[in-house]
Amino acid sequence: MIYLDNSATTKPCEAAVQAMHEALENGWFNPSAAYGPAVRAEKRMWEARELLANAAGAKPDWLVFTASGSEADSLAILGSAARFHGGKRILLFAGEHPAVLRTKAQLEAMGHTVETFGAGPDGVVDLPRLVSMLDEHVALLSCMQVNNETGAIQPIEEIARLLKQANPQALMHVDGVQGFLRVPFRMERSLVDLYSVSAHKIHGPKGVAALFVREGVRIAARVEGGGQEHALRSGTENTPGIAGFAAAAQWMLSFPERAQALRAVKMRLYERLRGAVPLRVNGPDPGGESAAPHILNLSLGVRGEVMLHALEQEGVYVGTGSACSSKKREMSAAFRAMGAQKSAAETAVRFSIGMMNTLEEADEAAQAVLRCLQVYGAFQRR
Amino acid sequence: MIYLDNSATTKPCEAAVQAMHEALENGWFNPSAAYGPAVRAEKRMWEARELLANAAGAKPDWLVFTASGSEADSLAILGSAARFHGGKRILLFAGEHPAVLRTKAQLEAMGHTVETFGAGPDGVVDLPRLVSMLDEHVALLSCMQVNNETGAIQPIEEIARLLKQANPQALMHVDGVQGFLRVPFRMERSLVDLYSVSAHKIHGPKGVAALFVREGVRIAARVEGGGQEHALRSGTENTPGIAGFAAAAQWMLSFPERAQALRAVKMRLYERLRGAVPLRVNGPDPGGESAAPHILNLSLGVRGEVMLHALEQEGVYVGTGSACSSKKREMSAAFRAMGAQKSAAETAVRFSIGMMNTLEEADEAAQAVLRCLQVYGAFQRR
Repeated sequence: MIYLDNSATTKPCEAAVQAMHEALENGWFNPSAAYGPAVRAEKRMWEARELLANAAGAKPDWLVFTASGSEADSLAILGSAARFHGGKRILLFAGEHPAVLRTKAQLEAMGHTVETFGAGPDGVVDLPRLVSMLDEHVALLSCMQVNNETGAIQPIEEIARLLKQANPQALMHVDGVQGFLRVPFRMERSLVDLYSVSAHKIHGPKGVAALFVREGVRIAARVEGGGQEHALRSGTENTPGIAGFAAAAQWMLSFPERAQALRAVKMRLYERLRGAVPLRVNGPDPGGESAAPHILNLSLGVRGEVMLHALEQEGVYVGTGSACSSKKREMSAAFRAMGAQKSAAETAVRFSIGMMNTLEEADEAAQAVLRCLQVYGAFQRR
Repeated sequence: MIYLDNSATTKPCEAAVQAMHEALENGWFNPSAAYGPAVRAEKRMWEARELLANAAGAKPDWLVFTASGSEADSLAILGSAARFHGGKRILLFAGEHPAVLRTKAQLEAMGHTVETFGAGPDGVVDLPRLVSMLDEHVALLSCMQVNNETGAIQPIEEIARLLKQANPQALMHVDGVQGFLRVPFRMERSLVDLYSVSAHKIHGPKGVAALFVREGVRIAARVEGGGQEHALRSGTENTPGIAGFAAAAQWMLSFPERAQALRAVKMRLYERLRGAVPLRVNGPDPGGESAAPHILNLSLGVRGEVMLHALEQEGVYVGTGSACSSKKREMSAAFRAMGAQKSAAETAVRFSIGMMNTLEEADEAAQAVLRCLQVYGAFQRR
């Protein structure tokens, strides 16, 4: 099996599986209880918090554990909007994940105005257009770090600067689910206020994620209860998930050259295909600075779903876009945001690389793609 | 170690740990993806849904997975209140977990009026008082199945009938976190609309829980995104947690006489102490029908925290109330709801039994309690 759908989810690394097992077997006490083993469970959770905060260049007490990137996004956006006084302007990047875009109805129900800003044909935010939309009434802006479909790296630090120039009180949220530990970012050195990350995209377990909330940023809880996570997200803590999350981050950090490793696999796949078949890149130039190291979105002349299933027969697993909405038929937000043709969206195949992929897998996957394309007669072998 | 704080959390059973391990090692694909292994992950999740629904006497498609009982409660209460037109009356049992009681501020911000109803001295809801509060303006009532501190079983089916007599459109929510699989209840045969359960109280993992939403009941999502869980709770599904939850429920169901087994351990402990020391029961008569099989709350004349730490030295782990708020100093909601004296609350020790406890452990724990009380001079050995 060659798994190239790492932006949908990743295989948990052995360190994460073991950390969860240990937490389930021995560290299962309720961290809110007062006796020794419970206090130790809380201490381990604190260590996880420190490790993850360091990984994001954030402070440990900025971290609020959630169950998913989507929950982190809802908490960031709806939670901060609930604290605004009066109706405000809220700007969302048009190519966001549904976790961000679908907050629109609730934001409008709160009395806010939601506007979206688009991208250029390479999927990167159209900055001049965005600048023309900024003013002192914009209270919140959300822009993802890396687009989950095209792999476009967004200029989030520059956007944050421009936003704060227009309104120093405005909040900047970044969905970092596809960027965390694959694209350089230090929250502390940026002007970003809210940063969402997720474990299962970095070879950690599903069911655990986090929102970093910069100190001084006021947001309202979405889950009430016993006051865990600074009372921003109550509920008994998912200690095995948190242990697995931290172990996965530690495993990722053990590869100092991980972006280069991911990029090498992606570029090998791209070079093998580019030389052999007519193709179109959906997103930024794969070798350029705006392209995330791990995502390659190509239109290969055959319907994406057909390629997905043909490649599955070859033991190669890919995506056709955001797995989260892959069962829907409409053109995805990312493709709409960059003004793509319907044909490009329909024939898009997303290859997304994880830390477990090898150059040899890239070679084999490329061969499999070529075999599939031959079957479908989409190209003449040169 | 004798662990008698099972209402704070339980040790995951081996079946749950193994099911999670399997899901992490082999079943880690994203259930929303379109290829075979992902479809199989979704199928396993559906099997878990069926098993858990059967366990609750509910339908599989009523189930919405959440990360915690608190999240299930917030989704039930704030999610349904968000759908009401105009300000409504909402009634909450005064002895609820903070996950329910602390929704008050958000409910009021939505324009609703929140009122609480109390209990008799045994911790069981004061029905005549409640009836006097019911009218056609009550749109939502929340009452827990089993009180987490006193073990009082609440007459939820009768409350639901009375509520629907007053207003057939009103919704009834039950926090079943302390009752699920320990106190008989079939949601389908009741008039309950929303039922919260949690995995880690039934020897499953932390980080996964569920809200059952009866068909036709309209609630608003609290987490937006890819539309998972009937679009009521988006986010990549916690497949390992869900597998562990179902395995734990299956393990619980493998003990057909589990309530009797729990009750036997509780009564052994109670009998051993009752004959030896002056004590006061906080809650219903432990042998009576209103007492949950697994919770025994006693005042033993020594401050609860002191007893907790003294018992820890003996290798016996107990609680002083809801672990979720055990670090707070104020009298807990359950004690206030039944009009308890401050001294009773301050000296309360909660023994909560799980399926792994034995009669021998009850004997040993009772001996440990007696030794601790001797040290603190709280009683003269007879």
